[in-house]
Amino acid sequence: MEDIGRALAAALGRGEGVRGHTSPNPPVGAAILDRTGELVGQGATQPAGGPHAEVMALREAGERAAGGTAVVTLEPCHHQGRTGPCSQALLDAGIDTVYYCQPDPNPVATGGADFLRENGVNAECLNHEVDALIPWLTSVHRNRPSVTLKFAQTLDGFTAALDGSSQWITGETARRHVHRDRTKRDAIIVGTGTAIADNPSLTARDGDRELPNQPRRVVIGGRSLAGHAPNLHRLGFEQYRGIPDALWQLWETGARDVLVEGGAQLASGFLEAGLVDHIQAYIAPTLLGQGRGVLAGAVGLTITDAVRFGTPRITRLGDDVLLEMTRKD
Amino acid sequence: MEDIGRALAAALGRGEGVRGHTSPNPPVGAAILDRTGELVGQGATQPAGGPHAEVMALREAGERAAGGTAVVTLEPCHHQGRTGPCSQALLDAGIDTVYYCQPDPNPVATGGADFLRENGVNAECLNHEVDALIPWLTSVHRNRPSVTLKFAQTLDGFTAALDGSSQWITGETARRHVHRDRTKRDAIIVGTGTAIADNPSLTARDGDRELPNQPRRVVIGGRSLAGHAPNLHRLGFEQYRGIPDALWQLWETGARDVLVEGGAQLASGFLEAGLVDHIQAYIAPTLLGQGRGVLAGAVGLTITDAVRFGTPRITRLGDDVLLEMTRKD
Repeated sequence: MEDIGRALAAALGRGEGVRGHTSPNPPVGAAILDRTGELVGQGATQPAGGPHAEVMALREAGERAAGGTAVVTLEPCHHQGRTGPCSQALLDAGIDTVYYCQPDPNPVATGGADFLRENGVNAECLNHEVDALIPWLTSVHRNRPSVTLKFAQTLDGFTAALDGSSQWITGETARRHVHRDRTKRDAIIVGTGTAIADNPSLTARDGDRELPNQPRRVVIGGRSLAGHAPNLHRLGFEQYRGIPDALWQLWETGARDVLVEGGAQLASGFLEAGLVDHIQAYIAPTLLGQGRGVLAGAVGLTITDAVRFGTPRITRLGDDVLLEMTRKD
Repeated sequence: MEDIGRALAAALGRGEGVRGHTSPNPPVGAAILDRTGELVGQGATQPAGGPHAEVMALREAGERAAGGTAVVTLEPCHHQGRTGPCSQALLDAGIDTVYYCQPDPNPVATGGADFLRENGVNAECLNHEVDALIPWLTSVHRNRPSVTLKFAQTLDGFTAALDGSSQWITGETARRHVHRDRTKRDAIIVGTGTAIADNPSLTARDGDRELPNQPRRVVIGGRSLAGHAPNLHRLGFEQYRGIPDALWQLWETGARDVLVEGGAQLASGFLEAGLVDHIQAYIAPTLLGQGRGVLAGAVGLTITDAVRFGTPRITRLGDDVLLEMTRKD
């Protein structure tokens, strides 16, 4: 089982490495052990239309896959799309045992494990939560992109001071984390108000350098951006009138994991419509007492009306703290 | 050094165990190893007037202390007060080496390590931060009680919903933590507004049962509580007109570690006066968008005016998160 643990770590790492590069397919990782337990192949899902993780790992393993073990972060697909089914590829390679972290909930692609078992391959679900797959799994369950609401705030919930200043609420470590996170998303969304007021670039950067894999730049709202937001005009962007329209168009064009970066009006709109699946709150250890809040108005009149999120994931980023939460329901 | 590690853990544990019981003295823990490295004595500071940690540990060790090692969370005192100096007690017991976590900053009691060295005892400062001593050290540096501002809030900084409901912002695990924390404090402080509106008990409870070591109940503000706050009248409380008056009186009567529990007006007053040393924010993973905030008004007009805290200590409490911060300066 030590070998399996090492293969699992490799598969998880490979899957994490392709977040943001695979939609509408899930960012899956795979690793192959030969008969003796040696790690002989690793791979991850390639951009849409390219091979899936299992095929990449099998290619690297070559003939040493025969009689070996595959560890995959998601149940192998059983669907002939732009690529052949991975279930068949694993069978053809002579794999003896397949461990997968999560069952595939996608009705079109599911059935891979059953097919493998019917053909004499051991297939076992590890029920291991895979971070990289959480947004994709949310999107499959909801039939729309997974929505993460992101904000940087003071401890007492302000995203800008009374004079509007907000540039340095969180520190450099947190800001770097934000940019790395953007490369893992299919789209970054802001409201027209934010686009006009802030002239954002909505790119993923390291200092002045643009990181590989830029998310789509999306603006939601009815106001025209003509004569405004020169950065977005230069870089290119999409605009949709309302939230349902935007989510539908994004889904249809392959986005599975989108990040809503504000402002407060748009954040409130998503929350009131019950369309926030995850929250990323970057919290700076300071108090302002008054200023611009995270949301534009009340989402609940009593404490029992409030939408509950659960199981926060906690990351320390310098003096700041990132709380990541997932909707409870 | 493995023995020293075990003795250090014992000393830290003993010190933590008497938090809230020792003021105006610090909650110190001590452990004694004999010549062979066996742990032969442990002790902690007794309530004011009683023996200090070193003396308690030496009593348990008896003759086995001779030639042994003492590990103490604070530099042994060198001051004849209601008890004799611990430096002399360690020397008299024939201790060979003393490791202490932190130097004693108290001008009256300092000098223990130098005295020991002059008398042939090895004395070495470990420079190990001791949680239990943080408020006491703050109080010595500031010549007033250490002030911890505590609140339970939603992620977006509301302590109550628009209708005033706040009972269940945080969950049971967090509420239990609050009560255990109260037993470690010398006083719990609220404003007259909160006393009148909430009729609080300001006791440390486990369900209906009162925990040992109740903090002093303190109300700050000019309004009369006559005919209000029956719980406080039943249990007894102190009232002071303003913050400076309260802190001075608390300091003079031995309080070193006080907890300010609100409301927003009092919290703002402490913060504006620069009198908040530590913050405890119990954060519930939910958003309200509007409601009653942590503070009553702006403490800074621009983001650079904001008071900065640092090094958050993070504790997961069920679905809630406790962020503990210390003022940077």
